[in-house]
Amino acid sequence: MLWSGWGDPARATPLPESVVGLLRDLLGVRPVEAPPLTLDEVVVPPSRLPEAALAALADAVGAEHVRTDDEARVRHTRGKSTPDLLRIRAGRAEDAPDAVVLPGSHDEVLAVLAACAAHRVAVVPFGGGTSVVGGLAPTGLAASGLTAFAALDLRRLDGLVELDEVSRTAVFQPGLRAPRAEELLRERGYTLGHFPQSFEWATIGGFAAARSSGQASAGYGRFDGMVVGLTVATPAGTLDLGRAPKSAAGPDLRQLVLGSEGAFGVITSVRVRIRPVPDARAYEGWRFPDFAAGSTALRALAQDGPLPTVLRLSDETETMIGLADPSGVGAELSASGCLVVLGLEGTPDEIEARRARIHDVLTGLGGEPLGAEPGEKWEHGRFNAPYLRDALLDVGAFAETLETAAFWADIPALYAGVKRALTDTLAGSGTPPLVMCHISHVYPSGASLYFTVVSAQGPDAVPHWEKAKHAANDAILAAGGTISHHHGVGTDHRDWYARETGPLGMAALRAVKDALDPSGILNPGILIPPAAEE
Amino acid sequence: MLWSGWGDPARATPLPESVVGLLRDLLGVRPVEAPPLTLDEVVVPPSRLPEAALAALADAVGAEHVRTDDEARVRHTRGKSTPDLLRIRAGRAEDAPDAVVLPGSHDEVLAVLAACAAHRVAVVPFGGGTSVVGGLAPTGLAASGLTAFAALDLRRLDGLVELDEVSRTAVFQPGLRAPRAEELLRERGYTLGHFPQSFEWATIGGFAAARSSGQASAGYGRFDGMVVGLTVATPAGTLDLGRAPKSAAGPDLRQLVLGSEGAFGVITSVRVRIRPVPDARAYEGWRFPDFAAGSTALRALAQDGPLPTVLRLSDETETMIGLADPSGVGAELSASGCLVVLGLEGTPDEIEARRARIHDVLTGLGGEPLGAEPGEKWEHGRFNAPYLRDALLDVGAFAETLETAAFWADIPALYAGVKRALTDTLAGSGTPPLVMCHISHVYPSGASLYFTVVSAQGPDAVPHWEKAKHAANDAILAAGGTISHHHGVGTDHRDWYARETGPLGMAALRAVKDALDPSGILNPGILIPPAAEE
Repeated sequence: MLWSGWGDPARATPLPESVVGLLRDLLGVRPVEAPPLTLDEVVVPPSRLPEAALAALADAVGAEHVRTDDEARVRHTRGKSTPDLLRIRAGRAEDAPDAVVLPGSHDEVLAVLAACAAHRVAVVPFGGGTSVVGGLAPTGLAASGLTAFAALDLRRLDGLVELDEVSRTAVFQPGLRAPRAEELLRERGYTLGHFPQSFEWATIGGFAAARSSGQASAGYGRFDGMVVGLTVATPAGTLDLGRAPKSAAGPDLRQLVLGSEGAFGVITSVRVRIRPVPDARAYEGWRFPDFAAGSTALRALAQDGPLPTVLRLSDETETMIGLADPSGVGAELSASGCLVVLGLEGTPDEIEARRARIHDVLTGLGGEPLGAEPGEKWEHGRFNAPYLRDALLDVGAFAETLETAAFWADIPALYAGVKRALTDTLAGSGTPPLVMCHISHVYPSGASLYFTVVSAQGPDAVPHWEKAKHAANDAILAAGGTISHHHGVGTDHRDWYARETGPLGMAALRAVKDALDPSGILNPGILIPPAAEE
Repeated sequence: MLWSGWGDPARATPLPESVVGLLRDLLGVRPVEAPPLTLDEVVVPPSRLPEAALAALADAVGAEHVRTDDEARVRHTRGKSTPDLLRIRAGRAEDAPDAVVLPGSHDEVLAVLAACAAHRVAVVPFGGGTSVVGGLAPTGLAASGLTAFAALDLRRLDGLVELDEVSRTAVFQPGLRAPRAEELLRERGYTLGHFPQSFEWATIGGFAAARSSGQASAGYGRFDGMVVGLTVATPAGTLDLGRAPKSAAGPDLRQLVLGSEGAFGVITSVRVRIRPVPDARAYEGWRFPDFAAGSTALRALAQDGPLPTVLRLSDETETMIGLADPSGVGAELSASGCLVVLGLEGTPDEIEARRARIHDVLTGLGGEPLGAEPGEKWEHGRFNAPYLRDALLDVGAFAETLETAAFWADIPALYAGVKRALTDTLAGSGTPPLVMCHISHVYPSGASLYFTVVSAQGPDAVPHWEKAKHAANDAILAAGGTISHHHGVGTDHRDWYARETGPLGMAALRAVKDALDPSGILNPGILIPPAAEE
């Protein structure tokens, strides 16, 4: 993973000159003047890890699995939000962990937690490092009497532990990256079917801890819906959850761990349901006259079926910019209306039967079929948007995303409110943006909205974005939406999350945290406000 | 609701003489000698409610909504398990609430909780009163410093608050009984699709608090999957949960309330997703050579589809007895193999298309179609089993049910283990039983098992049953099952629930309880062991 951006540096693709020109003419994007830094130019503060803690960690996992060198620390600094990238590109690593610890088993995770509790060192679980919500940058350490923090990198816990073909479930270790998990399943004829945009780098444990949702969620569901069992190492001991797909034995404690973002414990194994690899896949595009008509069509499929496996709708601006295919951005400026991308999986016969019924629904609601090409272009570029962001940052543009979900009745006002908040705030800061949106996850009772913002970077890009993002967060809550549909809470959404959840909900979460993590070493300030700030 | 049994006394149906004879010959059932008691013969202990508490409750809800008369107290004593019925039929009401309180609003519930916290009176939320797991009989009051307990009957909170046709959701008050909820929805063209055996008497709030699952769960899902929003009155204030169908904003706190059985708060409104009333329904029967073959067929439909709306498989004994149709019990003694009942809903075309595909699957796996009659008989008698139990108790038989769920790979050992535990224990007590079983809820990764036990009652029926039930509970945990798939925990399953959940899981639940119910007045000893016993 590129320390200053996304993914494999060999796959970086500069923007075509035509797009750079467009960005200049449309948004006033000006070239970045400073040349890019190299990793060894990043300013890393001295490690605060006490000697005794270092020795205890070496005891827990072996000295070779405790790293305090600058490179390891920079590579575990913050996550992959645009502010994260702009800070690290500016050479700022003040949020670097004081050490990186790589446990090799559940018991070693328990030993690390015990060592850190004894030495007052905070622990931040680290999977793919792909958080875009500040989920890897703890806060309030000093106020909590913590001396340092360690990134708990789970990459050594990367096995497929069990594949139960009768129950159609697989048990994975948390540090396994998603492409390798798919590979291991495919060797046996199965798939998980979980393909979020972070797919190429994210891990099984991260999916669970942050309630990930993938691009094929219409067909395969969300990750939290795939999980049927969890093992969790906490400072107070081990939780083993999930004896059946569903139960009436009290509250579903799996759902208390899913979305807990490492604040309650470290997920050390995940049992998920799996499915046979489909025989065939087919993608296609549709055009609707506007976002409202397209939303109505998606709602019809979500409520009355049949649902395809992939279903997404771009608004007018996103359709015009052609963002559904990052490699062809700007090529479609003549495109009008709103693009719908459909993906279908199954046997060829099943695909045909379902396609025919879907065509009837979409045609009846004003859709115009565009054939396979727009769908296949989307599929081809589906994991490329983070690379596109790097290229935009390189040429002096600012690009970031945010997302929410709500009940269908609230979607129009939510869409308008967030768009207005982003546009007004960034225009007020002197960097009027392009704001694009798509719906990519639908349910019978509601849907998600995913916004992409592009503007000129300007010298104060991070504080200007924070102002705009806060306005968008306020707009989300005002319109009845949730502060995140699949990115999570981290530190960035924490204050709005607390407002959404209410003081009593937060008190319940705090009580669980105190029971499982009595010394407060796990992810301080992530998800749950630091005790010192309450 | 009949105080000493189930439902509407006008619908009670005595057993045919032929069945009584069979019970005598097969199980040694002997007539009950004592004549049935009338309600006013039940011995009700004096109310322990302090005068000051009575006054405070009258202030909270109005004096006319606080009842301390014997009849009201008997009608709120315990639930509808067979031991509950045998105890009340024996005139024992030592678990009667000291008062019955009927709040008329969310705020009145909050006021009742405040009054009870101030006066150290426990509160037991009461919906339909249909608990079969001791969910209405709190324990450990004295040890917790509580002077009395009040049943909080929610029947006045019985409204449809909102129907959102765009989002396809409805908001109900908790005390609304299910048939009336269906009626209110049907007036607008919708259905909830939730039909547990307790349907005719159970309430919306009870479904949520106890994670109910209905007979059409294959098509409509479990109740906890239908809930998208909840309002909860707790002694510490109000929780408002659910701004979107799904969210990544932390753990799903709705799932902490669902299944909490009143131990954390009183559910005062429930937002559920609804569906259009189907155009048509069709039921039919299939025969499989044995339970293993039938299970394989159900698993195939659950994993690879298509799923019908109703799907259940009776084992050989249940098929022979004809229990799928309580009105025809004993009429099918010549039936061999295992009966599958299928229900299909939709437009006639959809039903036909799905039926054809299901027939292909079932035929390929050794099933033999029996036509519509067995399915229609099941549908006709679907809510009658509790009446049948009353009739069995009347003639001196003992009849009770229990249920569990597990992953598919564990189902065969779970089935054998529970059956053996019940048979051996009851035979050892001198009342060898008939043990019948069915699968009525399937998932891609597992299924539920529902056991029905019939034996002679004998003079020590309750302690004998408790011994058998404890052995079955042990067998469930030993085989990897969950202690309940849809009946819940209550007091009856509490110890096994604690074993299943583990000390750390229980500590998390206790922490939540302490945060939401700091004075410990809600359902003491239900779900969570009394603090005094820890």
